[in-house]
Amino acid sequence: MNYPYARRVSLLKSSDIRELLKVTENRDVISFGGGLPAPELFPLEEIKAISALVLEEEGFEALQYSTTEGYGPLRQWIADRMNKTQGTAFEKDDILITNGSQQALDLTGKVFLDEGDVVLCESPTYLAAISAFKAYCCAFEEIPTDEEGMIPEALDTALANTPKAKLIYVVPNFQNPSGRTWSLLRRKMLYEIAAKYQVVIIEDNPYGELRFEGEDILSIKSFDETGSVLCLGTFSKTFCPGYRIGWVAGERQVIEKYVQAKQGADLQCNTLSQREIARYLEVYDIDKHIAKIKETYRHRRNLAIRTMEEFFPAGVRFTRPQGGLFLWVELPDHVNARDVLVESMKQDVVFVPGGSFFPNGGNENTMRINFSNMPDDRLVSGLRILGKVLSASI
Amino acid sequence: MNYPYARRVSLLKSSDIRELLKVTENRDVISFGGGLPAPELFPLEEIKAISALVLEEEGFEALQYSTTEGYGPLRQWIADRMNKTQGTAFEKDDILITNGSQQALDLTGKVFLDEGDVVLCESPTYLAAISAFKAYCCAFEEIPTDEEGMIPEALDTALANTPKAKLIYVVPNFQNPSGRTWSLLRRKMLYEIAAKYQVVIIEDNPYGELRFEGEDILSIKSFDETGSVLCLGTFSKTFCPGYRIGWVAGERQVIEKYVQAKQGADLQCNTLSQREIARYLEVYDIDKHIAKIKETYRHRRNLAIRTMEEFFPAGVRFTRPQGGLFLWVELPDHVNARDVLVESMKQDVVFVPGGSFFPNGGNENTMRINFSNMPDDRLVSGLRILGKVLSASI
Repeated sequence: MNYPYARRVSLLKSSDIRELLKVTENRDVISFGGGLPAPELFPLEEIKAISALVLEEEGFEALQYSTTEGYGPLRQWIADRMNKTQGTAFEKDDILITNGSQQALDLTGKVFLDEGDVVLCESPTYLAAISAFKAYCCAFEEIPTDEEGMIPEALDTALANTPKAKLIYVVPNFQNPSGRTWSLLRRKMLYEIAAKYQVVIIEDNPYGELRFEGEDILSIKSFDETGSVLCLGTFSKTFCPGYRIGWVAGERQVIEKYVQAKQGADLQCNTLSQREIARYLEVYDIDKHIAKIKETYRHRRNLAIRTMEEFFPAGVRFTRPQGGLFLWVELPDHVNARDVLVESMKQDVVFVPGGSFFPNGGNENTMRINFSNMPDDRLVSGLRILGKVLSASI
Repeated sequence: MNYPYARRVSLLKSSDIRELLKVTENRDVISFGGGLPAPELFPLEEIKAISALVLEEEGFEALQYSTTEGYGPLRQWIADRMNKTQGTAFEKDDILITNGSQQALDLTGKVFLDEGDVVLCESPTYLAAISAFKAYCCAFEEIPTDEEGMIPEALDTALANTPKAKLIYVVPNFQNPSGRTWSLLRRKMLYEIAAKYQVVIIEDNPYGELRFEGEDILSIKSFDETGSVLCLGTFSKTFCPGYRIGWVAGERQVIEKYVQAKQGADLQCNTLSQREIARYLEVYDIDKHIAKIKETYRHRRNLAIRTMEEFFPAGVRFTRPQGGLFLWVELPDHVNARDVLVESMKQDVVFVPGGSFFPNGGNENTMRINFSNMPDDRLVSGLRILGKVLSASI
């Protein structure tokens, strides 16, 4: 049959990188490609205990349907946590639980984007946000971005010239893919410029809890007086991703629209997983757990940077992120990271070429390196191989 | 701020029934309103055992990210099961795991529906399918339907006159809300008419495993020679709904589009839940478990029907479903079921007025009664009260 797909389907192509990497699926490759947290840091023993506890004490409720909004005590914890760490003033009912923050991105598209609307984003920006928004047939305007965040004048000019601008999407802490963290001043200026043009800000913060050095910086939401900022969060990096529990937090009237959209999308999140996380947070000290994650990732970042400094050739620049899972590499202009990948794959080392993180293309001389999910010896030997391949490519 | 919502948001209103029922939230009402399975039938002890087993034996994998397509052994089980019970010929890779079958409905909209496309459906049809599809700004054409399914001539005429028809959505077994089961002949005719017009059929089968009497009837998919039928299924009614695990099965090239859509929507389903269900299916006998559910629901259906025959006034008709969770009540034309609900709420008995199940409105003289989730004494006393209210209303 000749399937009568919706127009948007032609935009939903599987990434060519994903196809390329399929070749290596059954081989023992050293992968800097994914964004996987380190599984040895999952609180497995604690999860065994709380899983048994929840099934014992609230089994029937935990297996039944529940509300679209999500489990009350979990929503309350999230509000309290954000208020404590991010300078916000959320209440329980300002929070909707989602299937990872990825679903919050999809619901954002559903609630805000008509065909032809424009999403303004950092350059580069998070790949899966591009996929989520693209399904709503929007266009992207990449705003020039330096080490401190979007350049305010460039954002102002873009907004002045883009009447269909609907959303500004940013990851202000340890961004995926660049590792960049926005300065306090830039956060404030972003809020003010967006407010001037009545544009909604999506503040996606999957990595904010994973700061290795320096001081936490107030969220963009903390400046919000008009209700124009929505915050996305997740337990995938601080607890574990298999549960698929994230959230969106914002002005209650907007969250109600997200709730209606989620009702049609999948009714609700996994009841058992929500109750297990809530119970975990009640019984255990997540700060102690996060401290352990940070210590491990800090060590790996340091090791990665030392190794790259030693083995990457001159002319290759890379970031030194203060937290998170990723660092970002810029090669000389004439080098295409896809060609580098083809070569490094021959030696069983993979990464994601950076071009995919630019919704409007270009910037093929960039690479994203994940450093969170690898033991020291593989991290070092993988980066040494990559260094050799780069030296031969430049 | 004046939020710049997408146009579709105006279509996503929360149902007025939901609002109405909120009044009763904290009262001990007898509810025929929900579609909840009976929690006392959840295999809680078995779930305790498999949950411990999965965390012990495959904990790190079960808590990590996994593929969008879903857990291989679970997809294989679903293909085998459908082939055995529904006359299909699926392989593992024809199956995508979704967050309940509700997400399969949403992805169906995403993959097939452009604004202004038309979904043909039974009259009445499943309420949450209407919500899912509406988010893609489609129109609905209700096809006249009798006890055996859609009336073929009416469907043929509708397709001839609806150039923008994209999908035909049907629930052929123990339909929600009507309890209706399609005859074999009507299934075959539906397939043939749809094939003639090159329209996709969505065969949603959440209740098919719950037949209390009579013989299983082959699925519409079993006639499919052109790949035009997609099948939706779920573990919510045979295992438990809190896990949010359902699926869509179909031609591989179409499933690949669903996979791409799901990737942007939420990356993947809960890893742990998928592995737990797969392990449950490996270790325990789900047929034995389903037999227990069917026995209980059969008893409750019988009791409901006997009580309604005794206490509902003349002029009120209702169906006698051969399976599933629902039966359907038709009142005399001049009686509005919303008025009946307002009266019955005063006596702490609620149900869903049937008008909501007609996407184009009307039919306010109908009611949906859920009989799966209530002990005998409450079932009887609730229906007696409803009978009295009806007698006073007619």
